[in-house]
This record gives sequence, C-alpha cells and structure tokens, in this order.
Amino acid sequence: MARISLWFALGAALTVVPIAVGQANPEAIAARQWRQQHERTIVDEFFGLLAIPNIASDRVNIQRNAEIIAKMMGQRGVPARLVSVPGANPIVFGEIKTPGATRTLVFYAHYDGQPLDPKEWATPPFTPTLRNGMLEKDGQSIALPAPGMPFNPEWRVYARGAADDKAPIVAMLTALDAIRAAGLRTKSNIKFAFEGEEEAGSVNLEKILAANRELFSGDLWLMCDGPVHQTRRQLIAFGARGATRVDITIYGPRGELHSGHYGNWAPNPAMLLAKLLASMKDDNGRVLVEHFYDEIEPLSDLEKRAIAEAPSIDEDLVKEFWLGATDGGPAKLTELITLPSLNIRGMASSRIGPQASNVIPATASVTMDVRLVKGMDPRRTAERVIEHVRKQGFFVVESEPSAQIRMAHPKIAMIPRPGGDAATRTPMDLPISQEVIRVVESVRGPAVKLPNMGGGLPLTSIERPLGTRTIVIPMGNHDNNQHSFNENLRLQNLWDGIELMAALLTM
Amino acid sequence: MARISLWFALGAALTVVPIAVGQANPEAIAARQWRQQHERTIVDEFFGLLAIPNIASDRVNIQRNAEIIAKMMGQRGVPARLVSVPGANPIVFGEIKTPGATRTLVFYAHYDGQPLDPKEWATPPFTPTLRNGMLEKDGQSIALPAPGMPFNPEWRVYARGAADDKAPIVAMLTALDAIRAAGLRTKSNIKFAFEGEEEAGSVNLEKILAANRELFSGDLWLMCDGPVHQTRRQLIAFGARGATRVDITIYGPRGELHSGHYGNWAPNPAMLLAKLLASMKDDNGRVLVEHFYDEIEPLSDLEKRAIAEAPSIDEDLVKEFWLGATDGGPAKLTELITLPSLNIRGMASSRIGPQASNVIPATASVTMDVRLVKGMDPRRTAERVIEHVRKQGFFVVESEPSAQIRMAHPKIAMIPRPGGDAATRTPMDLPISQEVIRVVESVRGPAVKLPNMGGGLPLTSIERPLGTRTIVIPMGNHDNNQHSFNENLRLQNLWDGIELMAALLTM
Repeated sequence: MARISLWFALGAALTVVPIAVGQANPEAIAARQWRQQHERTIVDEFFGLLAIPNIASDRVNIQRNAEIIAKMMGQRGVPARLVSVPGANPIVFGEIKTPGATRTLVFYAHYDGQPLDPKEWATPPFTPTLRNGMLEKDGQSIALPAPGMPFNPEWRVYARGAADDKAPIVAMLTALDAIRAAGLRTKSNIKFAFEGEEEAGSVNLEKILAANRELFSGDLWLMCDGPVHQTRRQLIAFGARGATRVDITIYGPRGELHSGHYGNWAPNPAMLLAKLLASMKDDNGRVLVEHFYDEIEPLSDLEKRAIAEAPSIDEDLVKEFWLGATDGGPAKLTELITLPSLNIRGMASSRIGPQASNVIPATASVTMDVRLVKGMDPRRTAERVIEHVRKQGFFVVESEPSAQIRMAHPKIAMIPRPGGDAATRTPMDLPISQEVIRVVESVRGPAVKLPNMGGGLPLTSIERPLGTRTIVIPMGNHDNNQHSFNENLRLQNLWDGIELMAALLTM
Repeated sequence: MARISLWFALGAALTVVPIAVGQANPEAIAARQWRQQHERTIVDEFFGLLAIPNIASDRVNIQRNAEIIAKMMGQRGVPARLVSVPGANPIVFGEIKTPGATRTLVFYAHYDGQPLDPKEWATPPFTPTLRNGMLEKDGQSIALPAPGMPFNPEWRVYARGAADDKAPIVAMLTALDAIRAAGLRTKSNIKFAFEGEEEAGSVNLEKILAANRELFSGDLWLMCDGPVHQTRRQLIAFGARGATRVDITIYGPRGELHSGHYGNWAPNPAMLLAKLLASMKDDNGRVLVEHFYDEIEPLSDLEKRAIAEAPSIDEDLVKEFWLGATDGGPAKLTELITLPSLNIRGMASSRIGPQASNVIPATASVTMDVRLVKGMDPRRTAERVIEHVRKQGFFVVESEPSAQIRMAHPKIAMIPRPGGDAATRTPMDLPISQEVIRVVESVRGPAVKLPNMGGGLPLTSIERPLGTRTIVIPMGNHDNNQHSFNENLRLQNLWDGIELMAALLTM
C-alpha cells in the first residue's frame, strides 16, 4: 500500500501538518481512488442537492430535500424513508443491515441550513458557485471543469449548506459508492439519520427519536457536523457544552425622565444593571455566582492529556481577532471551553448616538448565555444565577411587574423562566472511543481530540431517549462562514471527508 | 383694590395653594381685566402663531414665524427687526425706550420648537386644537367659544410650541396691550429677544449677541421658558445646570464571535463596560470620579433657605413614576438638582431579545451626560471622567482604534472629545434678584425659588458675551408634554402669564 504524504501550506500563521494515508485503511484508499476518478460526478450531485433551498421553515422545499436524499440513498442500495411526527420536518432514515454484525453505528447529519438574507451574499445562496479560492481573498467564480479534468482542491463551493451540513451527506454516499466498487464491506450495522431542523433548534428531534426508539437505536451516533480544527487537522469532539439563557430586565422610572430635572434623584436602571453584571465575574473571567462550578464532572487524565496535546492556536486567533488580552489566563482556549461560561450576548438601555436623549432610561436589559459542562443541570445553574441576582438586593419576577410591585421594591429584576440543554461528554477511554480515534487518525493523521466542543449540538436530545453515546466528527473547513453569508466548503475538505466516511462506515 | 383669592384643587396628591392678586400690582390687575374682556382675541392670535410650523431646520417657516412676530410687535408700537448672522435663524429684536429709565431689562423667549413625529400626535401638531381637559384624562377637542363667551381656564391648547415657548411671546404682547389700554407705563428700558433655534442647541446665539453687543445689552435677561413648579406655584430659577457629554465605546474582538467556541477566552466588551460604569458611582448615587465635586461653588445661606422652603413634591413624584427608591437620600429632589450628576442616557452592545445571537459582542457603548453646577468647568470635568476611565486600566483614544492599537492594549475605550456648557447661578441676594422675587410674588403668590433648574438653558451663551445676568421665569404647566407629542398649554397658565408679564414689563 502506497504511503502518501501531503503537506498543506496554510499560510504563515498556521502549522504545517503532514498527513499520511494508509497502511491501516484500505477503505480510505479505495475512497481516494474512486474520488479521483469521479470528481465531476460527485460535485454535480453535491450541486444538485445544494440547489434546493433548505431553511427549516420552508416546508415545501424541506420535503423536496428529504425526498431527494432518500432517492440518493436508494441509488446506493440503502432503502430510505422519511420519519416524522406531526408538525416536524422529517428525518431521512436509512439502514444497511450487515450479516454477523454485533453493533450498530448511526451517522447523523442535517440537511437544513441557517436562515439568511440573500442581499448579503456575493452569489445567490441556492445557486451553488465554484470559486477558485476564498472570496475574501478575491476568489473568482469559475465554471465547472470539463469531465475528466481535475478540480483544484483549494477551490471552494459557495452555497448555504455547503459546509453546514450537506457535505457530510454527499461524503457518506460517495464513500458507499467507493466501498461497493472496491468490493469492500461494512462490518457493523449502519444507520443514517439526516435531520431537517437542526438550525431551528432541533425542537422535534427528541420527540421523533422517542417515538421510534427501535428504529434509531445504536451503540454510537457519529455526529457529522461542524468545522475541523483551525490548523486544518481533523477534530474529534467527545461532547458539547450545554446551554441555558438568562435574560434580565431592570426597572427604573415609569417612562424616561428628563435627566436634568431628575438626575441625581431618580435611580438609573442602566447603572443598576451595570453593577449587577459587574458582580457576576471577576476581572479574569471567573464566574462569582455561588455554587456555579460545584457540579462539574472532572476531566479524566486521558482528557486532560488530550487538551494538553492539542496544538495551540491562541496566538493566531489573538491576531485574527485583534485582541489585546484574553480571559481565563494562563489557560488556553482548548482548556477554557471545557469549563462553563457566563456570557453577555447583548445589552440595551434607551438609545445611544444621535438618537440618544437627555433622559434617565426606564429600563435596562441584558441577555446572557450560560454554557454548561457535564454534570451541571441547566435549570439548577440558571437558578443559581437568579439567586445571585437576589443576593444583590433585587426582587425577582418572571413577568412585567405591576406599578405596586415597582413601588414596593428598590431594585427589581424581571427574569423569564429559563430552559436549557445539558452538556454531554462521552469518555475518551471507552473502547469504542479509542476505536474511533484509531480509525480517524489512520485516515487523517493526528487528530485534535477535545473532551467537548465549545458550542452546542442537540446531543442530549439523542442520548436521552435512546440511551446511546455521541461523538462529533466534523469535516468542514473552519473558515467556512458557517451560519453567515458566503458559506463555503473547501473541496479538499470534501475529499478528506469521503475518505473519513469510508473508514468510519466500515468500522 | 379687590382682593381675589383663588383656590386651586390640584387633586388629592397635591398641595392646595391660595393665590392673592393685588394690592401691590396695578399692572397685573389691569392685565387681568384686559384678558377677561379679550379672551377670544388673545387665543385667536395665539392660534395664528401656533399654526406656523417652527422646527429650527425648516428655514422657510422659521422666517415666517420671525416676520409675523415682528409684525405683532409693531402692532403694539414696538419697532422690531430680525437680527442674525449667516446661516443662523434670526433673533426677533424689539425695544421700548423709556424716558428717564436707568436700567434695561431684556425679555427672552424662543419661537422654534422640538422636532416631532406627527404620527405620535392625537391631532396635528400645527393645527392648534382646544381641548376641554387633559388628553390623558379623555379631554375632547372642542370648538372655540363664540366671541364674548368665556374660556374655561382648565381648557388646554394642543400644538407644538404651545407651552415651549410661544405662550410667553403672546403673554408679553398681550400684557403690553393691557398696560397701554390702562394708561400705565414702563419704568425701565425694555428689550425683547426671541430666538429661533433654542431647541436646536442655540448654536448661533452667542455669535449673534457678540456681534450686536450694544443692541442686546441689558442689566438682566428674564428667560421666559419652561414649566412652573409641579404644585402649580410660580417658579423662579436663578440659574441652570451646565452639561457635558461623555460617550464611551469599549472594544472586544474584531467582529462578533461565537459564544460557544470562544466563551471564557475572548474578553466581553459589555462586561468591561459594566465594570467600568459600576466603578463610577456608589450605591447611593454619589459620583466616585476623583475631584468631581472639587470646584462646586457653595450655596449661600439664602439659597439654602430657599431650597428648604420649597414645597416637597418627592412623595407625589415617587408615586407618579412608580419608584421603589430614590438616590441621594435623604436629600430631596430640590436639593439634589443643585449638585452635579453623572447619568447614563443610553447603553448598547450587540442585540437583545429575538434578534440576539449566540455571540460575544464586538463593542459596547454608553452615552452619558454630566450635569454641572456653578464653578465647574465643562472640559475639566469631562477630563476627570476620562482620567477615571484610564485609572480603571483603559487606554483611551478619541477615534476608532486601529488593529495595532487593539492588539497592544488589554482594555481600550474610545471617547470622542467632549464639549459642554458651564452652569450659571445668579445670586439670590442681589438687589435686582430680590426685586424680581417681590414683583413675581406680588402677582403669583409665594414662589418656589431655586438656585438653579435641574436642566439646561443657553444662559452662558448670553451671560458671557454680554456680561449680563439671567433669571428664569417660566409660565407653562408642568404637565405640558414638553418636547414630546401632544404638547399643550393650560389656559390658566396663559392668563397667569399675562399678569406676570405685565408686572415684570413695568418693573
């Protein structure tokens, strides 16, 4: 088996990483050979899927997406159907029953995309466009090469869903083509679950799974969503942070008051809010809410080692984001995302700039997200934040306070009842976790292994109803403008993904 | 001379105040008799003036206002002309030279009004409308009574400028009619100065006065603008607070960052702003900026006594504004407006509510006004606030910082160079101050005398170029929706104002 080394030059600021493909992975080799001979067909199929608008609220087009994906699966000999509950976008379900298999692996992706404003896009979001490089670096729109002519792997496909999250679907199905053509076989039972409302919050996912437990059951769900590491190394995330939201409105006078006539006398809710927020964290970013960190499940030695071994990208990111400092030091970003966080998403009181008036505002509001790690209960954590607010002297209500209540309390905070999702973390030292790492690294070289991603995915919505485990295996390029305009997938990432999927599908 | 007592029932919450008019004031008596016989004519003239739109930027209509006012003055035998500088709205100037007079009194009002949005008004702002009571208490639009039929003094005129500030102009000119008809005389030289851009900041006032010093010179300027006391007692304010504005923008990452991927690591500018603001005042509203209170000119015993004698309206206002507490206690509102203040007018960082995203904001901004009292220099005070910001560890810039600057400093604040106006305060114990008090109280009964108003007026723009003194004599009703929609003047306030002007014009 040939040993192939590929060096990626990532630009001055990034690490150069050697990728060896090989000995251990005939399926990945087969996938590469297949891909090299079928690049145009693969991209054509990809473009065809991307051309269907896929915003979750667009029920008609969502249905078209689901049906076309089911058809694509059928073409690979994978019988597929749409599974749903009333009012939900369907999950496309498919299955490969493997004789003699003793376990089931479920491959997850989602076919819906983030809402968008077409005016912000350089080319229409549902007219897939091939560019000869990053748009931000003047990448030009080019025609597809003639059949038989190769694609430059640095070329990018621009469309909503190109990276997040239709690429893995195409990668998986292409991998099946390659496996079949090479006469190779799956070893486990394989299931596919392609969701249609992840960007809308996966609000029906748990319901659909709970109503179809047998169908969706498996030993492990591989979540094929998200971007690889900023160094372009493969990333494996063994969980995600949970989240709860705490929104607070502080009340001042009934109606804005003239700041000349009443300044010094009427309390200012913006100042009350500033003091409240200032009390929640110290100057290094440590959360001061009592008991906030109490129930964190500690990391295992293996997990701590994985963090320590992850390449440091802090210096590059500090330059990219123009930061003069970071919080939580001296800990690095990779470690900090394994801790819970309390973050101000937005803040508002009256008006600023030319619209500002000489007033004492009537209210001041903040919206905060609290990221949770394994062990932390969302509601209990939110309640601790609310208790902190009470300790600062605020009378807390859940809805707009009446005049009587406002006159009865010096400081009032309205905090709507918070919901939230818990964090997940699959132990890295489970045999199946170790096996996934081995397989992934045999295809993609040393991977960055994170106990959990910084952000959230609907992992509890899967683990809870099915009693299963989840591991996140992204394939997108980190600079994919995910959720934004001009979302794009770098072709090399699709090529890598096909090889990765070939190896994982034959685990 | 008849002694007339009028009792005003102001509602359960307000003080009942007896007003006696009389012995000392033949001019006020003459004014009342004249008014009682000419109510319809007076209101017709008032309506005619109010029907001309008067936003300062509307140069054509501003010119119409000025010309019509000059004509109204000419009808009273007061030759008037328009005085201006290039680019400015004209001041309407008129003069009564009184043989044997040894002093000159200047009467100021302004004929422009606050910008508005007609959609917010119950009836069009430049279609003067008579209502039989407050709009908020279901006052209905009514036709003008037939000539000879009386007006109910609780009726109100709704129009922009009705209270702020065209009523005093009509009051002064009507007073002249009354004085002349009764064969009474002025004792001082009288000048009129009606400005056309007060609501736009009086940006040209000082320039016009400085270019025409002789013309506008006088021993005292009586500023006829603003509302009387909330108890409906007459107010005399011997000055106004000054003001400077401090706007601060705090910088975070270049562009909003995903709060999951980067929370705990990238600093949050909204939190930095909250901590900065929290450091500026203590929990009772005392400003913690070093040297903030250093140069305050202390109040005289007479001024302190005036404050102590002012009726307390705090309890009523606390109920009206639904307040659960007030700052600066145990001091009352009347005393607190003689101290400087630091107030947050507005605050913003990213978005709240349904538009909020899972982000670490890129910036956070606050706009603050600092009210000054006599002795405090605007620029020096603003500089002290800026020095406080530096002491909290911020690198301060005056304009948008470059990437290099952002990367070089952990905490950065952009603060545009502040301007500002100083406070004024005319001593209450000057002979002329005492005379004004005597005359006013002889017409309107015990007056509330304030060392300074809470808000601002362009008093330094008058005192500085002319070396003169200013005293504020308002006549509007406090519930006039000044600067807002449905501005209105209560007719009793116009009637009172005519008598007041008659007395003052013959001082």
